[in-house]
Amino acid sequence: MVKDGDRVLLYGEDGSKFIVRVVAGAKKSTHLGLIEFDNLVGKRFGDTISIGKTGKTFYILPPTYVDDIFSMKRKTQIVYPKDSSYIIMKLDVKPGSRVIDTGIGSGAMCAAMARLVGETGKVYAYERREEFLKLARANLTEWGLVDRVEFVLKDISLGFDHTDVDALLLDVPDPENYVRQCWEALKGGGILGVICPTTNQVSAVLEKIYELPFVDVEVWESLMRQYKPVPARLRPVDRMVAHTTYMIFARRVNAKFSSE
Amino acid sequence: MVKDGDRVLLYGEDGSKFIVRVVAGAKKSTHLGLIEFDNLVGKRFGDTISIGKTGKTFYILPPTYVDDIFSMKRKTQIVYPKDSSYIIMKLDVKPGSRVIDTGIGSGAMCAAMARLVGETGKVYAYERREEFLKLARANLTEWGLVDRVEFVLKDISLGFDHTDVDALLLDVPDPENYVRQCWEALKGGGILGVICPTTNQVSAVLEKIYELPFVDVEVWESLMRQYKPVPARLRPVDRMVAHTTYMIFARRVNAKFSSE
Amino acid sequence: MVKDGDRVLLYGEDGSKFIVRVVAGAKKSTHLGLIEFDNLVGKRFGDTISIGKTGKTFYILPPTYVDDIFSMKRKTQIVYPKDSSYIIMKLDVKPGSRVIDTGIGSGAMCAAMARLVGETGKVYAYERREEFLKLARANLTEWGLVDRVEFVLKDISLGFDHTDVDALLLDVPDPENYVRQCWEALKGGGILGVICPTTNQVSAVLEKIYELPFVDVEVWESLMRQYKPVPARLRPVDRMVAHTTYMIFARRVNAKFSSE
Amino acid sequence: MVKDGDRVLLYGEDGSKFIVRVVAGAKKSTHLGLIEFDNLVGKRFGDTISIGKTGKTFYILPPTYVDDIFSMKRKTQIVYPKDSSYIIMKLDVKPGSRVIDTGIGSGAMCAAMARLVGETGKVYAYERREEFLKLARANLTEWGLVDRVEFVLKDISLGFDHTDVDALLLDVPDPENYVRQCWEALKGGGILGVICPTTNQVSAVLEKIYELPFVDVEVWESLMRQYKPVPARLRPVDRMVAHTTYMIFARRVNAKFSSE
Repeated sequence: MVKDGDRVLLYGEDGSKFIVRVVAGAKKSTHLGLIEFDNLVGKRFGDTISIGKTGKTFYILPPTYVDDIFSMKRKTQIVYPKDSSYIIMKLDVKPGSRVIDTGIGSGAMCAAMARLVGETGKVYAYERREEFLKLARANLTEWGLVDRVEFVLKDISLGFDHTDVDALLLDVPDPENYVRQCWEALKGGGILGVICPTTNQVSAVLEKIYELPFVDVEVWESLMRQYKPVPARLRPVDRMVAHTTYMIFARRVNAKFSSE
Repeated sequence: MVKDGDRVLLYGEDGSKFIVRVVAGAKKSTHLGLIEFDNLVGKRFGDTISIGKTGKTFYILPPTYVDDIFSMKRKTQIVYPKDSSYIIMKLDVKPGSRVIDTGIGSGAMCAAMARLVGETGKVYAYERREEFLKLARANLTEWGLVDRVEFVLKDISLGFDHTDVDALLLDVPDPENYVRQCWEALKGGGILGVICPTTNQVSAVLEKIYELPFVDVEVWESLMRQYKPVPARLRPVDRMVAHTTYMIFARRVNAKFSSE
Repeated sequence: MVKDGDRVLLYGEDGSKFIVRVVAGAKKSTHLGLIEFDNLVGKRFGDTISIGKTGKTFYILPPTYVDDIFSMKRKTQIVYPKDSSYIIMKLDVKPGSRVIDTGIGSGAMCAAMARLVGETGKVYAYERREEFLKLARANLTEWGLVDRVEFVLKDISLGFDHTDVDALLLDVPDPENYVRQCWEALKGGGILGVICPTTNQVSAVLEKIYELPFVDVEVWESLMRQYKPVPARLRPVDRMVAHTTYMIFARRVNAKFSSE
Repeated sequence: MVKDGDRVLLYGEDGSKFIVRVVAGAKKSTHLGLIEFDNLVGKRFGDTISIGKTGKTFYILPPTYVDDIFSMKRKTQIVYPKDSSYIIMKLDVKPGSRVIDTGIGSGAMCAAMARLVGETGKVYAYERREEFLKLARANLTEWGLVDRVEFVLKDISLGFDHTDVDALLLDVPDPENYVRQCWEALKGGGILGVICPTTNQVSAVLEKIYELPFVDVEVWESLMRQYKPVPARLRPVDRMVAHTTYMIFARRVNAKFSSE
């Protein structure tokens, strides 16, 4: 049952998606027309609602993480689901994990982690620019995840305040300059993930990684292709995302073994 | 600190990986040589240990989900990380989720869900063949996740015993025959995921989906490409996985809107 | 030296491309401005020319096949270079080849073959719709290839007039209906290529192929990805073509061997 | 009709391929069994022949370029059809073209060009190592293409002996060192192609290209995926080639236009 304060995804037959927060008794003027929230309250998820003068019908759905990030306010490029889902798995984020995310941008990756670490884990979100930190905090608040996140406004060249973290995602314009700081923050066996849009950055980061006690170094890229869901004429869509980023993963050890 | 009962990943300099459970006071004969567990107890994760007569050195790491599934006992094809990570995100699995996994095969996907639903969620694991159910239960027990899973030995053509689930993953040889049962088990707004290795299956499942109240139907495939992590000669590896499965996603609504 | 009657590609610094045919003494009004052809005559390929009032500079280049098809008049989807290049190689088209192309659409594929079969080979171009045949003939004439092509206005369900051809490309909306006719037109060991945009078509054509004496059956798809050519920030472009067509290849034998 | 001196591809029902040259009156002992060539003479292409004591049946087919390069003697990595087909098209090789290929390796790419330039064109094949030149010449001779190729044993750092060529393919371990020599050999508007297996090489070559009068610079990679040709269970094969090389293309102009 939809109730006051719930966030709902309105899904149109034409594939349009629109997320609103229900405020009992209130109305909201949108590009779709006027939404009277009392018409939503008491509906079950999966029901429909008519909106505006034209009475266009929308399905009432619970918003997913993917819905949220594609409808959030953002000032930066976000990490796409094709990449964030794989990063989350490679960084082994799960309930109870203590992880660092930096830079946090608009908070999409921070949220991907926060929703999984649960009440018992924590995301330490480092960001150098106050405007991004504010935006990310607002987005995390909207998603009800802000209690799981500790925001730190800091230049990470000075190092992280948190140590022994299970995993750390480094997503800054010059990642090659912070690999040592990441090593210092990670626990033994902790996992580093690095976002690198260009091949030059991948090479630069790998060089730094090899100077420090890291093992199990991997570089990946993800190509996701969508299909037109037409049973009798099944085929991929015409165009797809060709590239977002390369992803580097490595595990922090305490010291490099020397066979000498 | 590694202690009695811990599972540890032994990672060799050559990239070899081997998972053992520490039994204080005991020894284990492996293909690597004899492991004396008391040499592991008290070490920190990220430290090294020498094993066998040759004294080959291994790093002591906490096993991740990806480590686990590639070293588990299995009798079936597993869902690869490139796919399972995306499925987990599209099904919006998180702490507290109630989800169905069927068929469970060796338990890899079941574990991917169980580790994220946490103590407050639940995975209902339906399987028709007792040998797979036993194997999956053994694997989930080994991973400490068995309490989050309720196993059901059942032919799903008879329907699921659990209803109002947040998400359901259908991974059986003839998925087109169980779409109605899935619809019945899902909550309003709940998300269906279907594993389909062939294009013919994709078409067959889509046809069934369109006969029922589902919306937001998507078909995806994932191509992940790994790179040789050599900074001065960066390039993809020579060969990659070309195909594992197509993935269908759809959201259950309560009834299809009719504009008449 | 550019001379009267030459076709030249004008290539702008911004990547714009424009093909014109030189008519000594004449002028041509274009969206770029007025081109006075006498300014082109006598220039070497690789030189520059200024056009229009703004004096925008263009490089004078010989047009390639790829330039031609992307600037030609067309009423149909063309076979992209990523596919046509592979088809040409798999069909083993070379000087002296006798090949059939059907349907010819705007003539792009027909031209790809005609330019390679040379003076000693021949392309038999079958098309059912007169408007396409006219358009293709006009394009082939413009490219100086029309003498190598014999156009046939015909419904190919009635069979091809030419037999013993080295290769045949079938590119029609319902290819599964003409596989027998293709078999009849091919020489022993001749190669069939089929354009199939959907997986359903691939399955349907394969079924027909297996009913007839064909061997060495292959199905391919091509994904070409372009990179931003920036040395210090090398990375793929943001978006790419996700799909054009599947390509089926098979070789015609005289009879299927039966081991009974 | 197969006759003395013909090269034929023997194609087994199991997909095995074997190329032989017919020598009337002779016999050849192969891993398939004894081939009596007189049993081949007079057969039509597309017919079958039984070989060896077991009488295994093979189809008699004309070898294609792709057959040839996968069965040739080689000492080097060859350029794969997925790449060579695209290179041929981008370099606009056709009957009458005058092109340079360097280094020639085992001659695969040289042959791809020679078979298309016809009697009126020419391939200038530059190679520094005599053993490769001999091997390539032997392969080209076997394929009947040697008359279209002029072999030059030379270190290309000294420059090419031929100039005004229509296109040039640079395939050496350190391509960034020869871009100037390539520019000097190409005609105005001539096309350069460069084979670069690593991203570092791509960056290095691009830097050199931008120092010289080249325009229309493009970088590509090709991913070809094959499908299991089973109509009722259509799906890609399990594994595919992940990477062979990046391909750079650029057009030589006479001087870079300066807007100052």
